[in-house]
Parts: sequence; C-alpha cells; structure tokens
Amino acid sequence: MTLDEIYRRGAEVMEAKGLTYNLEGVETEFVLRHNEEVFTRYMFRQKAINSIEVTTRTRLLDIELQAPIIMSSISSPIPQIEEDGLLKVARALKEAGSMMSLGTPLSSNLKEIVEVGVPVIQTVKPFTDRSIVMDWISRAEDAGVTWVGIEVDAGLGTRRVRGCSPMSVDELKEIKQKVSRPLVLKGILSPWDAEKALEVGADVIVASNHGGHTIDYLPHPIDVMDEIVGVIGSDIPIIMDGGFRRGADVLKGLAFGAQAIGLGRPILLGLAADGEEGVKAVVTQMAEELRRVMIMTGVKDPASAHRGILL
Amino acid sequence: MTLDEIYRRGAEVMEAKGLTYNLEGVETEFVLRHNEEVFTRYMFRQKAINSIEVTTRTRLLDIELQAPIIMSSISSPIPQIEEDGLLKVARALKEAGSMMSLGTPLSSNLKEIVEVGVPVIQTVKPFTDRSIVMDWISRAEDAGVTWVGIEVDAGLGTRRVRGCSPMSVDELKEIKQKVSRPLVLKGILSPWDAEKALEVGADVIVASNHGGHTIDYLPHPIDVMDEIVGVIGSDIPIIMDGGFRRGADVLKGLAFGAQAIGLGRPILLGLAADGEEGVKAVVTQMAEELRRVMIMTGVKDPASAHRGILL
Amino acid sequence: MTLDEIYRRGAEVMEAKGLTYNLEGVETEFVLRHNEEVFTRYMFRQKAINSIEVTTRTRLLDIELQAPIIMSSISSPIPQIEEDGLLKVARALKEAGSMMSLGTPLSSNLKEIVEVGVPVIQTVKPFTDRSIVMDWISRAEDAGVTWVGIEVDAGLGTRRVRGCSPMSVDELKEIKQKVSRPLVLKGILSPWDAEKALEVGADVIVASNHGGHTIDYLPHPIDVMDEIVGVIGSDIPIIMDGGFRRGADVLKGLAFGAQAIGLGRPILLGLAADGEEGVKAVVTQMAEELRRVMIMTGVKDPASAHRGILL
Amino acid sequence: MTLDEIYRRGAEVMEAKGLTYNLEGVETEFVLRHNEEVFTRYMFRQKAINSIEVTTRTRLLDIELQAPIIMSSISSPIPQIEEDGLLKVARALKEAGSMMSLGTPLSSNLKEIVEVGVPVIQTVKPFTDRSIVMDWISRAEDAGVTWVGIEVDAGLGTRRVRGCSPMSVDELKEIKQKVSRPLVLKGILSPWDAEKALEVGADVIVASNHGGHTIDYLPHPIDVMDEIVGVIGSDIPIIMDGGFRRGADVLKGLAFGAQAIGLGRPILLGLAADGEEGVKAVVTQMAEELRRVMIMTGVKDPASAHRGILL
Repeated sequence: MTLDEIYRRGAEVMEAKGLTYNLEGVETEFVLRHNEEVFTRYMFRQKAINSIEVTTRTRLLDIELQAPIIMSSISSPIPQIEEDGLLKVARALKEAGSMMSLGTPLSSNLKEIVEVGVPVIQTVKPFTDRSIVMDWISRAEDAGVTWVGIEVDAGLGTRRVRGCSPMSVDELKEIKQKVSRPLVLKGILSPWDAEKALEVGADVIVASNHGGHTIDYLPHPIDVMDEIVGVIGSDIPIIMDGGFRRGADVLKGLAFGAQAIGLGRPILLGLAADGEEGVKAVVTQMAEELRRVMIMTGVKDPASAHRGILL
Repeated sequence: MTLDEIYRRGAEVMEAKGLTYNLEGVETEFVLRHNEEVFTRYMFRQKAINSIEVTTRTRLLDIELQAPIIMSSISSPIPQIEEDGLLKVARALKEAGSMMSLGTPLSSNLKEIVEVGVPVIQTVKPFTDRSIVMDWISRAEDAGVTWVGIEVDAGLGTRRVRGCSPMSVDELKEIKQKVSRPLVLKGILSPWDAEKALEVGADVIVASNHGGHTIDYLPHPIDVMDEIVGVIGSDIPIIMDGGFRRGADVLKGLAFGAQAIGLGRPILLGLAADGEEGVKAVVTQMAEELRRVMIMTGVKDPASAHRGILL
Repeated sequence: MTLDEIYRRGAEVMEAKGLTYNLEGVETEFVLRHNEEVFTRYMFRQKAINSIEVTTRTRLLDIELQAPIIMSSISSPIPQIEEDGLLKVARALKEAGSMMSLGTPLSSNLKEIVEVGVPVIQTVKPFTDRSIVMDWISRAEDAGVTWVGIEVDAGLGTRRVRGCSPMSVDELKEIKQKVSRPLVLKGILSPWDAEKALEVGADVIVASNHGGHTIDYLPHPIDVMDEIVGVIGSDIPIIMDGGFRRGADVLKGLAFGAQAIGLGRPILLGLAADGEEGVKAVVTQMAEELRRVMIMTGVKDPASAHRGILL
Repeated sequence: MTLDEIYRRGAEVMEAKGLTYNLEGVETEFVLRHNEEVFTRYMFRQKAINSIEVTTRTRLLDIELQAPIIMSSISSPIPQIEEDGLLKVARALKEAGSMMSLGTPLSSNLKEIVEVGVPVIQTVKPFTDRSIVMDWISRAEDAGVTWVGIEVDAGLGTRRVRGCSPMSVDELKEIKQKVSRPLVLKGILSPWDAEKALEVGADVIVASNHGGHTIDYLPHPIDVMDEIVGVIGSDIPIIMDGGFRRGADVLKGLAFGAQAIGLGRPILLGLAADGEEGVKAVVTQMAEELRRVMIMTGVKDPASAHRGILL
C-alpha cells in the first residue's frame, strides 16, 4: 500500500470500528486544519544537478535512527485498534529503525514492549496528584524505557485525560534530579517555555501543539520555531510534531531546526490499515520520500537541512 | 450538552420553528462571515510551565461578574423561541453570574425580569420620534434596570426595526443629563464615534457591528479596536460583541482591550436548545473554556489580557 | 421583491429561457469571479453619531440623476428576455431618474426609446469597417441620444460581436470632431488609455473590464482607479462598472473616484425577474441601500465619497 | 470545439479509457494545484487604444515557430490514447507550426516521426545506467531529431520511470561534447542549476517542475523565474512549462522571461478529445488567444513581453 492508501484505508477501518473520535481535536479543530495548511506555505528550492551522497540516518542524543522520524506519545487508542497493538507498533518501529513514544495511561505490558528492543520514550501527564507522576516515571524507568518525559502542555488535561495541572520549574527540576534517564519536556511552543526547559535541565524538548487535544488556536511549531531555536540554540535536540504526513513535511520541519519529527495519527492509521506492516510502511515510506526530496534539495543528512532550501 | 451540541441543536430547533431569519444578516451577510473569520487570524502564545492562579471573575463598573461574558441586547426573538423566554434567560444569566441586556421593543414584563436579580442593561434605538426614546428610558429606569443605553449605530433602523435616525452629540448629552443610571452607548466602531462617546459622557461603550443587522461590510470590532482604544484609553469600559462563540474568542476580545464580551446568537441558540439550562450552559461553558486558555497563556484575570498573548 | 429575490428570480427566468450564456464571461471567467471578490476587500469606517443630511442626487455632465447609478451598455440580450424589453428598461430607468446606455447592435427603435425621455448613451464598437462606426454614431445622433460613445476596449471583438479592431487616437479624434454630443470612451483600464482619452478630448470615460466579455484576467477598475485618477484628475467624469450588485458596492466605487456606477447584469436580471418594475426596483433599491450606507459613513453626497471611509 | 470543450472532452475520454492516472501528480498533488493557482495571481494592464501590428511568430534558436507554444516532453501516454498517437501529434504540431518534444522511452518509430517534418526535441532521463543515456541520444541524433536534451530534474526517477540518478556537471559536459545538435537541459528550477546549465554549455534550458511527476512542493517556474533570468540573462533561450492552459497563461510566462511555453497535459487532452485535429486546435487556439491578449496589452511580438504588462 502507498502512504495515500494506508491513510485512506486506516481512516476507513477506524470509522468502521467507531474510533474516529481519536482523530478529532478540541473545539473548532482550528489546530488540525492549521497543522495541515502550514505545510502548504513552503516550497522547495531544487538542486537537481550534481548528485550528492544522501543519508537519512541520524543520531538523537544516544539513539541511532534510520531516519529522523519517530513516534509521538500515544497510548490508549492503540489497543482499541488492535488488542496487542502496542507490541505490533513496537516491533514495526524496531524494524524501521525508529523510536517509540508512549503516553497516558502507563501500559501494563510496558516491560514487554521495552523488550522488543525499540528505544522507548515514556511521557507522563502532570496529574494534579503529583505522586502519580513520579510513581509512573519510576515504573517506566524500572521497565527499562530509554527516556522519560513530562507532557508540560497538558494544562488542566486534554480531551481524553482530565485531572492535570501545570507544573512549575521547581517541580520539573525535582523530577530531573530524581530520574536516571534523559528527560524530555513535551509541549514547548514559545520562547518562555523553552527558557524554562533549559532552566529545568531538560535533555530533549518536543515542540508540539499536542495534536489539537489541549486548547484551540495553538500555532504549529513551525510558526514559532525561530523563537524557540533562538532560545535553545543547539544545546539540546528539538523534536517536532503536528500534522506530519509525508517526507516533504519532515524535511520542512528539519529545515526549521528540528532534529527529529514525531508521528501521531499516521501511526494509528498505519496500524488500522495493515497492522505491524502498516506502521512500518508509514515510517519507511516517509523516510524514502524524505531521502528523495533531500537528494533534490542538496541536503546530505538531516542535520544539514536549513531554511535556504525553502521558498 | 457541549457547546457544539447546543449550537447545533439550537439551530435545528429554530429552523423547525421557522425562526432562522433571526440569525440572518443584511444583504450579502459579509458581516456574519467576517465575524467568524476574524477569530481564525489569531493564535495563542502558550505559557505552559509555571501554573498561575487564574480567575475569570471581573468587575464592570459596579457590576461583579463570574466571567467577562454578558448578554448582548436582544429582545423580540426570545419570546418567539419560548413564551417566557426572557424570564428564563434572566434566571440563567443570574445563576451564571452574568449580566442581561435587552433591546427593542421594551419588554412588558421588564419589572418582573429585573426582579430576578440579574443586572440588566436596557438599550433603546434612536427612534425618529425622540419622545419614544426618552419615554422608554424613563420606563426602564422606573422598572429598576441597572444601566440604560442608546444603540447609536441603528442608523435608519435595522433589519427588524425601522423608523430610526442617527442621534447627535447634543441629543445624547441631553439624555445623559436626564438619566440617573450609567449610560451605555452601543455601536461604537470608529475613533470618531469613540470621541463623541467621551464628549457625551458615556459611562460604557459597546464596540459592535450590531450582529450584521444594520449595514453590510462593517468591520469587526477587533479590526478597529486599536483605534478605539487609542481614543478611549482606560477612561471607561469597552464591551465588545460580534461572533463570539468560544472561550478562545473571548480571550482574543479581551487581548484587544475589551473589558467584557457580549453574546447575541449564542443566547438564542442556548435557549432554543435547552431553555434556561441551555443559556446557562453557554455562558458557563464559555467561561470554563476561557479559564483553560487563560491558564495556558499566563493570563491571571480578564484585565491582564494583552496583545502579547496573540500570534 | 428584495434585491436578493430579484437576482435569484431573474437568474431562474434566464435559465428557463436558455439565456444564461448572456451572463457568462470569456475563458476561465476569472474576471467575473474577481469582479465579485474585489468588493469583499473593503469595509466601511462607520460614523454613526451626528446625523447629516444625505442626498444620492448627483449631476453627470449635464444630466441630473436621482442616484449615481446608471445602466451599462447592453443591447441584444434585452429583447431576448422580453420582446419590448428595451422600451421597458427605458421607462424603468426614466422613472428611477437614471440613465440608459445602449450598445451593439444599434436598436431599430432607438428613436422610440429616446422619446421615452430617459437620457440615453449610445456606444458603438470599433468595427474594422470604420464606416459602420461613423454611420451608427450619426444615426444615434439623429435619433436624439444624449451622449455617444466608443467601446475602445472591444479589441478584436467580444464573446458576441466579432469584426472589431482597436482604434487609434487619430481615429478617435476624428470622431470627436464630427459628433455634436458629448463623447464617451468606454473601457479605460490603465493610465495609458486614460492619457489617450484626454488627448482625444473625451467628455466622459467609463472605467470597465467589459463585464468579462473581452479578454480574461483583466483587473477590476477599482484595482487601477488610483492610476487612472492620477491621470484624469477631476477634468472629466469617470463612470465605473463591473460586478456592482448592492448599494455598498456603489459607495466603494465612488470612494475610489467614480462619479457614477454602471449596471449590466443587474438590469438583465431585473427585467427577467419582473419586467419594467424589476429594472426600476434594482436601481431604486440600490440607491436606497446607498443612501443608508452614506448616512452611516458620513458621506453627504456622491461627490463627497473618499477613500477614508474604507478600511 | 473550443478549448474548454477539448479539455472537458479529453478528460472524459481519458477517464473512459482508464488513463486518468497519466494526468495525476505525486503525493499531495500540491504542484498541480499550485501550477493552476499561480496564474490567477497576475492580471493584465490593458492598452486598448492605438492598435499595433502583432505577430505571435517567433524564433527559438534556429527554429521558426508560428507561436511561442511547443510540446513538452511526453511519450508513453500518447500511444495509450491512440495507437498511432505520436504520428498524429507530430502532424498536428507540424500543421500548427509548432515543435514536438519526446521523452522516455525512446519511440520505436522516431525516424518516422522526424520525417513528418516537425522539429523534434528528444529528451532522455538520467538513467543510472549511463550507457543507456548516451545510447538513446545517439539513436535520436541518428533518427534526425533537431535538438537533444537531458531531463536533469528526474532525480531518482519519476512516478512512471525509475532507475535514474542525478547527473553531475562533468557528465553533462561530456554529453555536450559528444552531441552534434543543440543540447537542452530540462528541469532547471533554481539559480544554482541555472549556473550549472551555463557551465555545461547548454543551448536551451527548460524551466519546469516536471508537471508534478518528480517531488511534491516544487515551485512553479514563474515563482523562481526572476532568479533564473538573473543568472541566464539573454545568453540562451528559456522554455517554461507547468499548467499552461490558455493564451493568457502563455503571455504571463513570456512576461516573466520565457521565450517559449511547453504544453504537456493539453496535448494529451487534445489528442484524446479529437485526435490530430484536437492537438492542432489546442495549439492554434491558444496561439489565437495569445494574439488577442497581446493586442490588448500592446505586445508586438513574443520577445517584447515584459513584466510591466502584469498587475
């Protein structure tokens, strides 16, 4: 199946299973429309003559990736699509040389997932009952995940998970001191929060509007990336997510300064469309599209992407 | 019911009762389309880390409000939807800690409405027969309304009420001298009219395009708010209305300098969808949405909203 | 019938009579879409307080008009709609205090039309056989028309009339010398042609894109009006046409420097919808809408409209 | 049949024959939508008065053309539409005084096509097996084609042809030395590639986004033409293709500095709609539209088009 076919088939299957609400956003769904529209604003400056050696391989902190394309934190919708969906996704991402990212709630078989051998990020929401937060992070570390993280942008909660409240820099610093793995702060969308992420000592940030699940009218990370990069510089890696569907989108995210791109809905659609194969196909086909467009724009590796390739 | 469900259900009920014309605008309905489109131009700059204490409570002159969300002047469509609609709306707004606003014609049971205990603004159109204007204002004062006002933008009349003609500064000054309650001038949409409102001695102005019921191709208050605030400064409160449907819209209006936001069609739709409960739900759910987005943008109270939260 | 109803009903009648092609434009119909879209770019700056005395009456050279709204040159489609359509249109325009404008071919009952008493402009296309041009102009003068004109923008012809070729300044000067009535040059859409119109000694120009009947992708007169007014100044009156459907559109045209606005399709639709009454209703209702919006923008007469009323 | 009718009928025939996929583009088809949209950004500044002598005739290197409208490289879809389609297209283009352009694979009856007497460009893709490239070019020269060319923008291949890889300047120089006919480099879309084309010694370049068949989100040549002309100057002719459907589009391409315009899909649609006649009609009708719009914008020949005619 081509990417188009996977996305179409995946949507049909989710519709048939009554799971379409997992793909929806809050309120007017401005965020979802904007996450799609933002990519149509940028075209590529072509460099067709003089082939270069191109690789999509990249390193994210200590993780080697086949391409700068990983999974964004999702959990509960996956077992709704297929009972052992999380394991299938883990295996698919392992085969694709990618990275997994899990969210709330903590999966009961997290250890089993980790044993698949794919690098795993476990992010936790800032539950108002802070003891849960630290408990889940500890359990994730015990299960052997690669990185742990906090979804700092969950606010009072999302469409699906309530009972959260924003964390302070002090609370996040405390978590940073307690964890033994790299700490990811997910949901940075302004220079203010980027500064606080540095202050906390975050090892990675995720520039994200949470897929339209928190509040409406948030910008796309691309809209604010210059401001965020202005704060972060090259101190720590920035992962970006939000509406990425094609290799061309990935290159645009990299050109704005992301080191890797997270996929949310495409993983769900891939799983719905064709199980483990579908998820793997999404990642590897996007990587292949990325490689083709890198060749045509003279970008030799993900770290070499820059704004000058965009028009 | 969620806000979406209330708006959808309310529209269906009004359609079924043949009352949809109450929701229409004049001529090409540019104003209605623009009142919706204008909100999609602004996104929020998120401040997710470091929770702040947030309150939607605010004071408008001498009125305490649970949130900066009040009713815009409407009258006649309400009893068409439900016979005792005005009383239901009054009770709903009272429970929501909001403010009522009534227009033309003067309600026969105005005193009964006032006795519900909700603060009430009674606005009057500039009927060419000026004696009606002063008579109605006096009757409103006698009935105990909180504020009185003139709809200065009615021009020759609206889609539904004819026989008006613009008032002069002198005429408005005369009214100001005669009334014992705060005087609202509704329909200020340019710096010229803002200056005249100050000259008249208005206590509150409403920046409004009259919901598309006067002339076509009027701007949204947001389009001209900088010019109006340039004249008014912080001398008197500015209420804004026009197409507000969500808490996010309300925060945008506040960010442009409004102290409170008026709701017209949402009140009608709430009443049509679910009577008193529906009206209350519209106001309280919008207030709750407002609170969530205030938390995520670092706005501690309505008066602290500013343009810097918008992108 | 309201304007909306007239336009809708007129379109239905023309559809039923197989005359819709009269409403179409050349090639991609960009011009027709743009003629509609251009009006949505401008909103009004309201002046609601302090009523002024407003009149829509105006003078165009030696012609007194009830409003700055006249007919644009059309001929052949009118008798297709109603056999004695031209006489009906003449009577309607006379009653409305407006002006008629006739194009190609020359009407056989032109004298009868003139005798209705409405001021009449007869424009002639630049037929390659120049003898026809002068012959028709002479016949029009003999029939007693008020002004005569040349459609200088017909190029090689329009969708409906072929066998034309552009006229030179010298040819136009020759016509100017021969005619005894004011000479209108219709189809000026650039400063170059405006300069040539002055050189010819034209008494009136019509800024027009010929209703989308000549070539595609012509701008609307509003797009180029500043350049044209830069050349013409206030030496001679400028009539504008192109997509005007409402009083608000008319005021926008005046604000850009037109002295009067021409109506094409609205006249056809009015006639189709309701005969003589329909045509009259189109003109008088647009004039009434114009008056209302003039009152709300502080424009006391058509000559006082200016760009400052637009946002 | 008019152009509209040809395009509509052609699309129907291709649909009926299951050939619609030949008209599609890669991935999201942004390129196809943009190739259409880009033409709506420019309007014409009209010069209606003072007719000029206009000719669409032009010379492209040593080729005399009736109009600056030629065929863009296509091959395989044509015999799918009609068995002897290539000969029909050749005859149609010969009659229209135009130029043919053939792509991959090399036609078995290339000699027969050449003998029709139409000037022929044979372009070859940069197959990774470079021996094929040179072999095909030699065979094309032997068959008597007028010019030969390389599709430098094929990258790793297109939707339909795989097994390519970008050529280096040195490889292209080597080809230039070997060929005895003028060398065309097709697919220049940036100043970098334009510089390399000059370095190679190309005789003609084609500014093109390959009809949306290579990578997504490429700009239209019009978007980057100023940069390309900045490099190329008037040293060698620039052919442009991408979404041209009407004479007005052609004039816009010329105004941006192209010497001739290539047609891809319109040739397919013309052939599908009406065989040889259809192809001829497409070219001659576009030329006639071009002539009309040249007359109305004061452009006496294709080389005289300039940016000042656009608004």
